[in-house]
Amino acid sequence: MSANEALLTLEGWYTYHNFRTINWEKWKAASEQERKAALDELQSLMSTWEANEEQKEGSTAVYSILGHKADLVFMFLRPTLQELDAIKTAFNKTRFAAYTEAPYSYVSVVELSNYVNNPGEDPKANPHVRERLYPILPKWEHICFYPMNKKRDLQDNWYMLTMQERQEMMRSHGLIGRKYAGRVKQIIGGSVGFDDWEWGVTLFSNDPLEFKHIVYEMRFDEVSARFGEFGNFLVGNVLNQASLATLLEV
Amino acid sequence: MSANEALLTLEGWYTYHNFRTINWEKWKAASEQERKAALDELQSLMSTWEANEEQKEGSTAVYSILGHKADLVFMFLRPTLQELDAIKTAFNKTRFAAYTEAPYSYVSVVELSNYVNNPGEDPKANPHVRERLYPILPKWEHICFYPMNKKRDLQDNWYMLTMQERQEMMRSHGLIGRKYAGRVKQIIGGSVGFDDWEWGVTLFSNDPLEFKHIVYEMRFDEVSARFGEFGNFLVGNVLNQASLATLLEV
Amino acid sequence: MSANEALLTLEGWYTYHNFRTINWEKWKAASEQERKAALDELQSLMSTWEANEEQKEGSTAVYSILGHKADLVFMFLRPTLQELDAIKTAFNKTRFAAYTEAPYSYVSVVELSNYVNNPGEDPKANPHVRERLYPILPKWEHICFYPMNKKRDLQDNWYMLTMQERQEMMRSHGLIGRKYAGRVKQIIGGSVGFDDWEWGVTLFSNDPLEFKHIVYEMRFDEVSARFGEFGNFLVGNVLNQASLATLLEV
Amino acid sequence: MSANEALLTLEGWYTYHNFRTINWEKWKAASEQERKAALDELQSLMSTWEANEEQKEGSTAVYSILGHKADLVFMFLRPTLQELDAIKTAFNKTRFAAYTEAPYSYVSVVELSNYVNNPGEDPKANPHVRERLYPILPKWEHICFYPMNKKRDLQDNWYMLTMQERQEMMRSHGLIGRKYAGRVKQIIGGSVGFDDWEWGVTLFSNDPLEFKHIVYEMRFDEVSARFGEFGNFLVGNVLNQASLATLLEV
Amino acid sequence: MSANEALLTLEGWYTYHNFRTINWEKWKAASEQERKAALDELQSLMSTWEANEEQKEGSTAVYSILGHKADLVFMFLRPTLQELDAIKTAFNKTRFAAYTEAPYSYVSVVELSNYVNNPGEDPKANPHVRERLYPILPKWEHICFYPMNKKRDLQDNWYMLTMQERQEMMRSHGLIGRKYAGRVKQIIGGSVGFDDWEWGVTLFSNDPLEFKHIVYEMRFDEVSARFGEFGNFLVGNVLNQASLATLLEV
Repeated sequence: MSANEALLTLEGWYTYHNFRTINWEKWKAASEQERKAALDELQSLMSTWEANEEQKEGSTAVYSILGHKADLVFMFLRPTLQELDAIKTAFNKTRFAAYTEAPYSYVSVVELSNYVNNPGEDPKANPHVRERLYPILPKWEHICFYPMNKKRDLQDNWYMLTMQERQEMMRSHGLIGRKYAGRVKQIIGGSVGFDDWEWGVTLFSNDPLEFKHIVYEMRFDEVSARFGEFGNFLVGNVLNQASLATLLEV
Repeated sequence: MSANEALLTLEGWYTYHNFRTINWEKWKAASEQERKAALDELQSLMSTWEANEEQKEGSTAVYSILGHKADLVFMFLRPTLQELDAIKTAFNKTRFAAYTEAPYSYVSVVELSNYVNNPGEDPKANPHVRERLYPILPKWEHICFYPMNKKRDLQDNWYMLTMQERQEMMRSHGLIGRKYAGRVKQIIGGSVGFDDWEWGVTLFSNDPLEFKHIVYEMRFDEVSARFGEFGNFLVGNVLNQASLATLLEV
Repeated sequence: MSANEALLTLEGWYTYHNFRTINWEKWKAASEQERKAALDELQSLMSTWEANEEQKEGSTAVYSILGHKADLVFMFLRPTLQELDAIKTAFNKTRFAAYTEAPYSYVSVVELSNYVNNPGEDPKANPHVRERLYPILPKWEHICFYPMNKKRDLQDNWYMLTMQERQEMMRSHGLIGRKYAGRVKQIIGGSVGFDDWEWGVTLFSNDPLEFKHIVYEMRFDEVSARFGEFGNFLVGNVLNQASLATLLEV
Repeated sequence: MSANEALLTLEGWYTYHNFRTINWEKWKAASEQERKAALDELQSLMSTWEANEEQKEGSTAVYSILGHKADLVFMFLRPTLQELDAIKTAFNKTRFAAYTEAPYSYVSVVELSNYVNNPGEDPKANPHVRERLYPILPKWEHICFYPMNKKRDLQDNWYMLTMQERQEMMRSHGLIGRKYAGRVKQIIGGSVGFDDWEWGVTLFSNDPLEFKHIVYEMRFDEVSARFGEFGNFLVGNVLNQASLATLLEV
Repeated sequence: MSANEALLTLEGWYTYHNFRTINWEKWKAASEQERKAALDELQSLMSTWEANEEQKEGSTAVYSILGHKADLVFMFLRPTLQELDAIKTAFNKTRFAAYTEAPYSYVSVVELSNYVNNPGEDPKANPHVRERLYPILPKWEHICFYPMNKKRDLQDNWYMLTMQERQEMMRSHGLIGRKYAGRVKQIIGGSVGFDDWEWGVTLFSNDPLEFKHIVYEMRFDEVSARFGEFGNFLVGNVLNQASLATLLEV
């Protein structure tokens, strides 16, 4: 890094993961007409989100979730917290929402850290940077979400390291990530001041074993081994309007 | 600090954060007339709180909250715990309360610590002090709330430091806060003896990224890095009577 | 302490804190007649408890609680666990109980520790001792309750200290408590073998800031700083039959 | 211990603590006839358990529990997990079960550890050993239950000690227990591989202060002070068919 | 290990543990006809799973669970996450599901670690390897499930050890496991990136004491003593279509 360069943390779209469980008993007890109306309304909302994505005003992903922690996740990227709040409220007002509960959610902002900037340049003028800050979420087969902190535990205190120590560790960490390029797409959401952990990580892949391999390989890297603190992991399968309809068919 | 000066911790208004989630299914199932009556009653309560604020007998802020942890927060500052209790009970007796649940709350007292006082002076006679102890909450776009402790973990034990060590660390901490003056308004609620953490911090800003930046920058400061212990973070958007009515429209 | 003296831990009445939240929707939906019957029955129970206190067969305190963790606390001191169990069951059988839930409770026994006894004396013959073991709870404006442990964490292990180290620390701790005499009344409930923490502490005061000051001042004392582990804090305002009726008026 | 002797851990009956809370509102709302039918069925089950105990095919204890964590505990000792499962299912099918919930339970096996055996002897042929492995639970006034682990925390790691170190500490621990012989009856349930803690301890006494004294005295013993990790404590009063009927009378 | 050999971690079938509690009150309140229809549908699903197992397209185990944490577990092994998701959804759509809740679940993939491979060989061509990666679950009397991590706590940090240190410890660990061969069948599910712990361990045995003995013996092994971090333990008894019907008979 030359003396004129600066290390930046850049922020892009705000993100909101809306995890839902389905109350199947209630859903099955509803009339076919009511279920159709609920599904139509939900799909129409999904069409709005898709139009929104085509206009590059944000991006949306919908996945089923395995296990008992949730059944679905709706992941939204938008330019402002107000838009995310409006999406939350609009969802809560749908007929479908009444057949679900919200066991979990996550609020963050897409973050690109340790960006090396040339003096006098606007990093957001760089199209590669823009693509990473305002990403269109890939509709790959699988999603993996987990929140994380950097530990502050006696001698294992990330925030007491020098900037140089942190940069060196992050560089080696980044190298592992790069090995998975093209196979794992990673969205880092910074959530300091927004949610209970410091980051929310979302991974996409067409092969779920890639999630296992990248997270496990990173765990031996000092930055994760000594300083990574992880929350719940949620894994799922991609949905579109048609496959969501199939999932909800009773 | 001259030998005659004294370091004081001053307390002002008691505070009560009343977080609520909305039971949208129940709200939608209510008749339009019932919903109107509930909203009218709530808005009339809000008018009372506003009148109260104009009389400088307290201050109130109302925000929506993102994510699943809550939908709304009503934040109250009042001279006594009795008044806060009366507000809690009055809210619980409203029609609107029956459409909500209380997943979280916080009780504290506005605190100004390390105040350097000249001998013989009444600090509360100082209008700058009064403004900080009895603040009128700004109606800025965004709110951020989190509770925190000072750690007591083996060699990272805040309460085993000397007063001088603590003052030096707090001074450097205060300098970071001052950099955000005018952009981030901070209310420190002391809650030792009142609630589960030692402090409840409320931030206001017109740009949510300011929350991220101030909290993240402080995290590298030794007082946070080694001694800060943080609870849940809740973030939201400002509401007034009109926008609350819009939010609740179904 | 002379060679003939002995350090005793004395136990007095058993204690039971019965915290309750009110289901306001259900309470409001009840007929006025039903509410009146429920309140009458509860007040009649309170009269029994008051008579009990006049007979010095125990003591009772009733307070509202701030925040979402509870709405009320009924605190009982009685000679036996059987009596506390009977009180619990009697309360649960009332009409009023059906409008409430029990989010929390605490079981302990009033404890006077490090009592220096002269050989051959019966400490319970001493009226000052009796007053502390069988206290009549003051009906002061405010209550504060919290449970606590002495830490056993590597080198900060209270139970690995020598008796002399523990006594010296407790003595300095006691001195702080004594400064608040007359302003803060403290009831120490030993709960080893009875409940999830080692002690349950109940404070009474007419000024809630006294709770903040005494707990905060003690936190810098080595015995708390290094060895204190604290649970939830609950704070409230005094109630009698009349003010409870007002609180419940809808 | 001579060179020919062996230290054994012996296992006896499997144990199941079934803690229940009573839904008093539902119970009171039931018809007197329904309540009678539910109680009759429960008492008939209790008679079966008592017959079972007379046949030495197991043992059962029924106690009320103080505080909000539970209202009742049914503690069962039986030769197999299948029998405990059958008891669980039979209880769940009763009318009474529908008026209760199961906030907690514990599964373990009665364990006698560090038993010094003479070579060639069958320890289970020894009647004293049999009495401890297949105990008839005393119907003493009070019960105390808590689960516990041996800590594995850096230098305080029980499982990294030598066998000799562990045996010496356990010996001193056992000496404290022996001081309470006749006043406190202790059942140790080993639950490694069966439930969330390594042991579940059940104490019986006619004076609840004995629970406090034995647990507190042991806490200063190195094996508890450094290595004991404790879960919730539940304390209660003995019940028989008649007193359970009284408790349930509304 | 010769220089040409490589240490591999191999993955086989994905696994899903579906734990359920039964709402007995609702089940008993259902008509006999409805219960029969629900049971028929569930048994027909079980027949599908059995056919699936005969075709070696996966494996399934059904057990009752002791205590209050769950009543049943349905454990599935399948080639893809999509199939596990389909099984989850199909189960949730059954009549029986409406009489149950899902308090817990676990998602992982069968894992064979530290496999020593000869160069140029396809390990999955080896039938012994295939048997371990695509196991047919034994229908032994008892099941034990628990999730676990390798600790990262200051000097007890598994992920900071050298590969050689880890291999030596795992070897000694494996030797203990081998002593139980034929008596305890062990399925290791790797869950890094899939669920909240790093591994989910399922044990089968005809004698539940074997669970206690193997887990306890391993706990003294350095790899568990210093580095093992364990979640909840669930233990149960085998079920087939007939014994499940008996269990559900009311």
